[in-house]
Amino acid sequence: MTDDAWHYERFEPTGSAIGFRITDKLDQVQSDFQKIEIYASTDWGNLMLIDGAMMLTARDNFLYHEMMAHPALFTHPDPKQVVIIGGGDCGTLHEVLKHPGVESAVQCDIDEQVTRMAQKWFPELCESNDDPRAKLLFDDGVAYMHNAAPDSVDIVIVDSTDPVGPAEGLFNRVFYTSCARALRSDGILVQQSESPLMQLDLIQQMRDEMGKAGFREFVTLPFPQPCYPTGWWSATLARKSGGFGFRHSHAQNRPFATKYYSADIHRGALATPPFVAQALGGSQRESDDTNRMARIE
Amino acid sequence: MTDDAWHYERFEPTGSAIGFRITDKLDQVQSDFQKIEIYASTDWGNLMLIDGAMMLTARDNFLYHEMMAHPALFTHPDPKQVVIIGGGDCGTLHEVLKHPGVESAVQCDIDEQVTRMAQKWFPELCESNDDPRAKLLFDDGVAYMHNAAPDSVDIVIVDSTDPVGPAEGLFNRVFYTSCARALRSDGILVQQSESPLMQLDLIQQMRDEMGKAGFREFVTLPFPQPCYPTGWWSATLARKSGGFGFRHSHAQNRPFATKYYSADIHRGALATPPFVAQALGGSQRESDDTNRMARIE
Repeated sequence: MTDDAWHYERFEPTGSAIGFRITDKLDQVQSDFQKIEIYASTDWGNLMLIDGAMMLTARDNFLYHEMMAHPALFTHPDPKQVVIIGGGDCGTLHEVLKHPGVESAVQCDIDEQVTRMAQKWFPELCESNDDPRAKLLFDDGVAYMHNAAPDSVDIVIVDSTDPVGPAEGLFNRVFYTSCARALRSDGILVQQSESPLMQLDLIQQMRDEMGKAGFREFVTLPFPQPCYPTGWWSATLARKSGGFGFRHSHAQNRPFATKYYSADIHRGALATPPFVAQALGGSQRESDDTNRMARIE
Repeated sequence: MTDDAWHYERFEPTGSAIGFRITDKLDQVQSDFQKIEIYASTDWGNLMLIDGAMMLTARDNFLYHEMMAHPALFTHPDPKQVVIIGGGDCGTLHEVLKHPGVESAVQCDIDEQVTRMAQKWFPELCESNDDPRAKLLFDDGVAYMHNAAPDSVDIVIVDSTDPVGPAEGLFNRVFYTSCARALRSDGILVQQSESPLMQLDLIQQMRDEMGKAGFREFVTLPFPQPCYPTGWWSATLARKSGGFGFRHSHAQNRPFATKYYSADIHRGALATPPFVAQALGGSQRESDDTNRMARIE
């Protein structure tokens, strides 16, 4: 819905909408999968929409991309092989490749046009596309993970659109089973997991599916993301074992720049608000309680 | 702007908008100061708007009210006298009075109609209005603080609308000077301080004014607030001295329920993202840096 110079996106599952004051429509392409539109805005730089849903703005995408990448990479003891499913704008790839220890980062997005539009309108996100460790595939992520060699991957990051349409297959047991098989025993699955205020039922459902696929430990990290519904988003991390303690001093002394992520932000994101702990019914305890118990034990 | 069953609020300073799917307009009153409207919504419960700006929803106001109250009250060593300027919906008062040590909580909002509408449509926020420690005044907050006895208050919470219109006088040196005089030496001023992503210039300007009024230490705590522009909001705390370490074990073992606040959420909110530290130019350092230095010293 566009009204004068404002573009609004209504999000049915949360009964809320986000809008931006736009100045121009810069580009549009109908790919084999979806309609991709680029707008210029007064305060948020360029915007990318897919099928009318806000994907990213130049101004606030750092929040999402940093939080999809760094918490998992600083939790894994030594991540070398990383796979990104979706993520066609290349922003997550850019963050992953900031880690010098990463030897290979495969980005598998079904829609090449997303990457072509990102290269044209968000070149800052694509600065690592020519890194020799990067491999950009334009293929079906479900098939890619199904065919991945067992025990070959340290981290899988599912950087997808909402769980409807092309991305629907990325939120169920079949896909997660492929991820579990491809991941090494200390591997980590990261899934963008929508709004922690309004969609805790979806997060619980996602965890249930991950559990059926063999994952045993879960943590949902909330972070601000103004261009997504409710302005509050989350990444859910799942492991077979190993927990979610992270390499705090490595994170603190990281050899690269970030705008949002820091060791203390990471630790803060691990603090589970009481209402989230309550909704997730024991699969993620309130951190104060956990700490109280840790002191008692 | 209302379109079918959606209500949108455009926020000029951030070039962004928030919308909610509404079902009914429940009430409206034009007070001596502003127009107050109440809507019912599909997913957010009742909504209150003042002069078209979203003030609160039943669903997400706990985030704001808890973060306006508890971080300051658990930072002060023993808060007994609390003053709330604005806050006519009584939600902040309700949180403040959860602290058994508080002996007096004065709420001074210029507009009695805000409180009357809250009592009618958000009764859960007004459950403490009859607490014998509560005193509800409907008067000019600037005058109230100007006339407050020196060294008589432990915490002043400025729970105001945006710094335009009726609330404009709550964001400058004159008002902050009154607050500084009324506060005891270890007192704390809390000011709602808009979006930490888009309005860091305003936060810096606010700190400058507070500094001219005698405050020497500042910290800005971000928190999610979906119904406010960008979905990410903040409270800025100011002190003459004493710092922002807080009574962690008291917070952890708080004798009351909260939905968002916890000791770990409080600690997490003290983690300053790198981009915020950079924008505030040294008046609030990135917490990783601070911690690194603390280890070195």
